[in-house]
Amino acid sequence: MSERVFIDATADTVGYTFGGREPIATLTPGVPVRVRTWDCFAGKVRTVDDLPSQVCEFPYLNPVTGPFHVDGARPGDTLALHLISLTPASTIGFSSTFPHFGALTGTHTTAMLHPPLEERVWQYTVDHDRRTVRYAARSSDYSVDLPLTPMLGTVGVAPAAGEVRASIVCGPHGGNLDSPLLQAGTTLYLPVNADGAHLAIGDGHARQGDGELCGVAVEIPMDVVLVVDVISSVSTAWPRLETDTQVMSIGVARPLEDAYRAAHADLIGLVTDLTGLDQLDAYQLLSQAGRAHIGNVVDTDYTIAAAIDKRLLDGAQPYRGTHQRLRAITEAS
Amino acid sequence: MSERVFIDATADTVGYTFGGREPIATLTPGVPVRVRTWDCFAGKVRTVDDLPSQVCEFPYLNPVTGPFHVDGARPGDTLALHLISLTPASTIGFSSTFPHFGALTGTHTTAMLHPPLEERVWQYTVDHDRRTVRYAARSSDYSVDLPLTPMLGTVGVAPAAGEVRASIVCGPHGGNLDSPLLQAGTTLYLPVNADGAHLAIGDGHARQGDGELCGVAVEIPMDVVLVVDVISSVSTAWPRLETDTQVMSIGVARPLEDAYRAAHADLIGLVTDLTGLDQLDAYQLLSQAGRAHIGNVVDTDYTIAAAIDKRLLDGAQPYRGTHQRLRAITEAS
Amino acid sequence: MSERVFIDATADTVGYTFGGREPIATLTPGVPVRVRTWDCFAGKVRTVDDLPSQVCEFPYLNPVTGPFHVDGARPGDTLALHLISLTPASTIGFSSTFPHFGALTGTHTTAMLHPPLEERVWQYTVDHDRRTVRYAARSSDYSVDLPLTPMLGTVGVAPAAGEVRASIVCGPHGGNLDSPLLQAGTTLYLPVNADGAHLAIGDGHARQGDGELCGVAVEIPMDVVLVVDVISSVSTAWPRLETDTQVMSIGVARPLEDAYRAAHADLIGLVTDLTGLDQLDAYQLLSQAGRAHIGNVVDTDYTIAAAIDKRLLDGAQPYRGTHQRLRAITEAS
Amino acid sequence: MSERVFIDATADTVGYTFGGREPIATLTPGVPVRVRTWDCFAGKVRTVDDLPSQVCEFPYLNPVTGPFHVDGARPGDTLALHLISLTPASTIGFSSTFPHFGALTGTHTTAMLHPPLEERVWQYTVDHDRRTVRYAARSSDYSVDLPLTPMLGTVGVAPAAGEVRASIVCGPHGGNLDSPLLQAGTTLYLPVNADGAHLAIGDGHARQGDGELCGVAVEIPMDVVLVVDVISSVSTAWPRLETDTQVMSIGVARPLEDAYRAAHADLIGLVTDLTGLDQLDAYQLLSQAGRAHIGNVVDTDYTIAAAIDKRLLDGAQPYRGTHQRLRAITEAS
Repeated sequence: MSERVFIDATADTVGYTFGGREPIATLTPGVPVRVRTWDCFAGKVRTVDDLPSQVCEFPYLNPVTGPFHVDGARPGDTLALHLISLTPASTIGFSSTFPHFGALTGTHTTAMLHPPLEERVWQYTVDHDRRTVRYAARSSDYSVDLPLTPMLGTVGVAPAAGEVRASIVCGPHGGNLDSPLLQAGTTLYLPVNADGAHLAIGDGHARQGDGELCGVAVEIPMDVVLVVDVISSVSTAWPRLETDTQVMSIGVARPLEDAYRAAHADLIGLVTDLTGLDQLDAYQLLSQAGRAHIGNVVDTDYTIAAAIDKRLLDGAQPYRGTHQRLRAITEAS
Repeated sequence: MSERVFIDATADTVGYTFGGREPIATLTPGVPVRVRTWDCFAGKVRTVDDLPSQVCEFPYLNPVTGPFHVDGARPGDTLALHLISLTPASTIGFSSTFPHFGALTGTHTTAMLHPPLEERVWQYTVDHDRRTVRYAARSSDYSVDLPLTPMLGTVGVAPAAGEVRASIVCGPHGGNLDSPLLQAGTTLYLPVNADGAHLAIGDGHARQGDGELCGVAVEIPMDVVLVVDVISSVSTAWPRLETDTQVMSIGVARPLEDAYRAAHADLIGLVTDLTGLDQLDAYQLLSQAGRAHIGNVVDTDYTIAAAIDKRLLDGAQPYRGTHQRLRAITEAS
Repeated sequence: MSERVFIDATADTVGYTFGGREPIATLTPGVPVRVRTWDCFAGKVRTVDDLPSQVCEFPYLNPVTGPFHVDGARPGDTLALHLISLTPASTIGFSSTFPHFGALTGTHTTAMLHPPLEERVWQYTVDHDRRTVRYAARSSDYSVDLPLTPMLGTVGVAPAAGEVRASIVCGPHGGNLDSPLLQAGTTLYLPVNADGAHLAIGDGHARQGDGELCGVAVEIPMDVVLVVDVISSVSTAWPRLETDTQVMSIGVARPLEDAYRAAHADLIGLVTDLTGLDQLDAYQLLSQAGRAHIGNVVDTDYTIAAAIDKRLLDGAQPYRGTHQRLRAITEAS
Repeated sequence: MSERVFIDATADTVGYTFGGREPIATLTPGVPVRVRTWDCFAGKVRTVDDLPSQVCEFPYLNPVTGPFHVDGARPGDTLALHLISLTPASTIGFSSTFPHFGALTGTHTTAMLHPPLEERVWQYTVDHDRRTVRYAARSSDYSVDLPLTPMLGTVGVAPAAGEVRASIVCGPHGGNLDSPLLQAGTTLYLPVNADGAHLAIGDGHARQGDGELCGVAVEIPMDVVLVVDVISSVSTAWPRLETDTQVMSIGVARPLEDAYRAAHADLIGLVTDLTGLDQLDAYQLLSQAGRAHIGNVVDTDYTIAAAIDKRLLDGAQPYRGTHQRLRAITEAS
């Protein structure tokens, strides 16, 4: 086994958009690399006294490492990204409320006349051995351990139609999906809209609840080992996920029922393609066997992943078995 | 162990509203009873050729057995209903599409100019021994077994403010919540709005996917063994659930993000009451440790359950330990 | 001209539901009557120091005078209600904020963690001669006259399916539509769901902005002169309005785009029925010539009226010319 | 009066994004110019047999002429754009349905299983003398004249945060707002996010109904005479409009109630700034005197304009009287 290429997160390798920037490195399909990401605060929150609205400056939020040019990726292809491992690169993570951001506060668009909620920072301690992350209340001395379940909040490529999107928003190009499903062992499929795809990643979370209720997870720098592949001439409309047991479509929309609808309509398309069921039979199968996982209910668009067990797919393999192939690389490496 | 009282589902014991009807029987807190429910089609769909829009007549859909007068229940109290067991009372269940109903079709309110989707019926076979329910496609010979996970789609009480609501709608009074979490072993808490609460139940499902995508689960008559309790002078705003490991609040609203918001705001209230955390600390805890379960995205209002592990509640017991007490009755009976 | 029957608003003639109550009087089609309504506070707010949350008691909000049995109205018919005149029965009206109610505050379902906005009452002075209503700020001495444009916030009939609905909610049965279009000269069409229709009215507003932003208009008791008619064997799905120049459908739903959709789909149905245009041609005509009027964005369901000029309808008359007939009665009376 | 500068719409002067392109010309504040815009089909629909999905190619839809560098515009300033005149540059306009686009059809995000509605094109004839535009049905020989009320569907500047947005989407930067209020005599205020603002305009409509129901107005090339101004060091969060009688804020969001909320919260901010009323008093004034105008219910985000009569503002002038100044230029020119 050769030494893996390591791309550090530095002022030169991070940015704040998808699209509109020059690649910082090239990824070769099938060759794992290790990438460091900063936390969503760009490391500026270091104590519970560092209020994000004071130490961070819009739009320098949610830095992503990249973009990476993926060899051979052409518009109309699908990019597969397999997360081999996610390792928090710190023993300390932070969360916070943020003025006019979150599911239970007035926001820019769900505009209210209330003054903002108190801005408060919480510090979490990661125990790598025990695989826990410790919540500690601010208003009392209560604390409790939660499971450490590292995930990536933000993974995306250059958007379609020549758009450049801020790294804090999400869309069909991925971006700030904030889905707890983006864990080690998962393969993410994204549309390729530009030569080389221009993949970038960031926003590691030590863990996150469903919906990212207050808008901020346990934010932490992350060491990400990943491997990519390109599925030529196969297009993908919405981000899709695959694990060893499930395949999923992610709908990205507001209101939240539209994220639910888009995810399920897309997954029905996948099921009919894979199984030969007609559309109504696939609709029925998902009605009884589908699972829906809420990603975020706080970002510019909300996300829901519709999931089905692969064992229900009559033996078919999504994307020509890409997940298994990338999985095999993982095990070999 | 004494013989349990059995209330059958008959033309005399079922109805189509919550509120507005006289009790058919009285339930004594702590005394388990067995109740039969009809399926949502009132048994009129018997083959895949029985199209619901032809054999059923609005508003005679979704019959509920009851109402039951609960001894000692007074407005301002909370009714606890513990589901001891749910046993499908048939080996055959049905699902269907229904014109202008479901998440992926134009409806009465999400009005579209499209003609309705094809109305199609699916017949499911229950294997009680293997605990499976068999999906069979209509357009091909594909079939596959799904786990049998019986649940109740509809549980409710007389609404507040003298309202009478159809059994196919849901609200703070419960009703057609269509949450897959309403399984055996779960305790449901509902507000008491009228003397005796006027509990009614129906709409058994052999299983259901998250969101009840096409609007119809695997509908089947059900034998329900349940026991009730009354928590005096404790009010409940939204339906809540408790299992051995989790406590949950169900938000009932449109759009779907409002169901998410109402559920989480209510659960934050419960967490602050139980733990002494202040509101922001509870908000933060749920942001990292909360789970959100989509019930339905098809009914007059959508439902989401916000959940937290009880082990995170610093040893506190929701509703004075009611769930454990009812659980103990279960085990004794 | 004979003396008109007058039905006063008293403890015996008002109620707080649609459905579930016995008629207080009978209306004969074609015979105008005069009906008094209380304001939405049931007269309990008398000064700016009377905070509604303290002087009013849920569910005794939004009293409606009635119900009236309409002679000859049978399920499946349409009830036409023509508003001949609306005259505020006081020179003083009140508005207020109300805790957790309104478009720019967290509510029961758009749940937020903010404390409620300040509850504040505004007193308006009506000048009947000048046809103005005077706004006076509370935090400064600024005041300004607004046009007096009396309207009825709440008009409805017994709901379908045996439901009983609180007078503060709205639906296909009408109810608390809070549309500024319900002014003198307008005819409202509602479905008849029960023998006699069981019409009730209330919630007079001296005027209201689009959407009823804070949830409370200029609330005032009202003298309403109205005349009804029954269109036999013609069903109506959503409330519809007709003036001398326009015909409209009111969609009642959440989210607000669904109210827009339901209203327009219904109006397309009316246009195709009246003109013989096919559905797409009617869709196109409304796309360029349709007007959309926001009623409320604060109640349990939101309302939007989709409107089209009758001169675009190729000479056709909605509901067999009912509006013109009732208009003629008005002018004769 | 000197000859006005004329900027034609050509392959070199139109584009398909806001941001990401070099200015094609410079505008001097206070100096009117004449700008030609193409229709949203880039002129490719020439008969009712030219189906847009066949003759147009994504993303080459909705061309905008520009961008223009506005002299002196700096980030943090507000750009004022006064529309002096809008003159359709053709006697023929087109509208159409478009697959999976419009308010009454399943779309990319409001995903449905229905096949797309029929794609159909309508040709409109403009009579410049009579100021009418003629609707002609496709399924019958019915036709009728509608008033000619020219408007611009798309006006915007370079977005914030380095984003580049397709010209078919809308946001705080303006873009495809599709508000019928953007007529001659109106001043639009937009935030300046980049040196020179990078204004671009397009998507002229001979007229449009509220909400742009089917997604496509009466699309027509347009001659636009406009004049700009820069209000230094005054920032603007949402697009605002001013006419001789009203001032308005445009909310851009989904669901539609959030567009309503954002528009009204922004207008309350303007009213408090101008009048010294406190927030609640302004909330109350808008609750009774506010008007809400639906722009579009079909684009990536919906738009609603909240409006108030300027006579209610106690003599105050929005934006230091900019509208009046630009109006005076108009009259002089």
